Amino acid sequence: MENLIFIISGPSGVGKSSLVKKLPLRDFYFSVSHTTRTPRPGEVNGKDYYFVEEKAFLKMIEKGEFLEWVRVYQTYYGTAKSEIEKAFSQKKHLILDIEVIGATRLRSYFGKEAIFIFVVPPSLEELKRRLKIRGTETEERIEERLNRAKEELRFASWFDYVIINEDLEKAYQSLQAIIEAELNRPFRNSLFKKLLSQII
Amino acid sequence: MENLIFIISGPSGVGKSSLVKKLPLRDFYFSVSHTTRTPRPGEVNGKDYYFVEEKAFLKMIEKGEFLEWVRVYQTYYGTAKSEIEKAFSQKKHLILDIEVIGATRLRSYFGKEAIFIFVVPPSLEELKRRLKIRGTETEERIEERLNRAKEELRFASWFDYVIINEDLEKAYQSLQAIIEAELNRPFRNSLFKKLLSQII
Repeated sequence: MENLIFIISGPSGVGKSSLVKKLPLRDFYFSVSHTTRTPRPGEVNGKDYYFVEEKAFLKMIEKGEFLEWVRVYQTYYGTAKSEIEKAFSQKKHLILDIEVIGATRLRSYFGKEAIFIFVVPPSLEELKRRLKIRGTETEERIEERLNRAKEELRFASWFDYVIINEDLEKAYQSLQAIIEAELNRPFRNSLFKKLLSQII
Repeated sequence: MENLIFIISGPSGVGKSSLVKKLPLRDFYFSVSHTTRTPRPGEVNGKDYYFVEEKAFLKMIEKGEFLEWVRVYQTYYGTAKSEIEKAFSQKKHLILDIEVIGATRLRSYFGKEAIFIFVVPPSLEELKRRLKIRGTETEERIEERLNRAKEELRFASWFDYVIINEDLEKAYQSLQAIIEAELNRPFRNSLFKKLLSQII
């Protein structure tokens, strides 16, 4: 069976991570990002992030080794192209959990090769409620995140699929259906290609 | 939830009908074709076919009332556009079980509105075995059907999805996944559209 690339995106607080973490590690490789920030206590290099020096990061940019990268204040974050090979050499599907703008940039890189999924909240009220539940943010910061979410939602129509994360189990069912359906594309299904080779 | 249109096609003997018949009547409307041939014993008008006089059929062609039609020797077969409204007024998805060439014609009619699924056998040997099992065909007629199947398979890459019908249960799972996935398209999901209307 062919290995697929899934780009999962959506506003912060929507439950993206909980959703993709339900996918079995046996079949899915979760892309690990590079960053120049220092590890927090408990964070593991190569698992949470690849922690690299700024000099090394800039070198990677220069060499075109990133699928996409951003700089947030003094910190760099990026997804290395080598993550694709890491997934495929293990015969796994690649999952890239990427913020919305980064995801839109990847469309031109991957074309139809990758499948773009946008996770949305059932409503803005519900997103606000979830951000509040976290309890780690000030009222002002929550408003800021909500406004950013509104901006990001404008990009959703451009994705291949939207998954409404109202109920995590139901959202996961949709994600599984999307994966199964995409494996049935004529240009991806290896059994079908084998059949075609019998007649051409 | 939005109503979908599925065009299901594939070579004769591949098990298309057994596959779509597993879909629940509660949610799916199976298109009924028009024909000018006389009903066989037990066939019910409006269920197996709409049996009409040639004069009436030609009138319908003239009025542009068919999505597609063919003439096989002296008999006409066609799918009326009114089947779409019949399905949608019942809030059901429409299933059109149509032979390959007819299906390819429908692409230009429906564009991205309809979902095109091609059912294929796991191998040509298996298709041959299934045609033989029926026991109703001569060796010569089986060869004829096999050659036609080979021709038809060349069109499969052009469909949105291929389902390999090796095991009926597994094929049905794929069909269900495709339906679920397609309901998660941004341009189809009514909940998502409602969410978008909150921000625009």
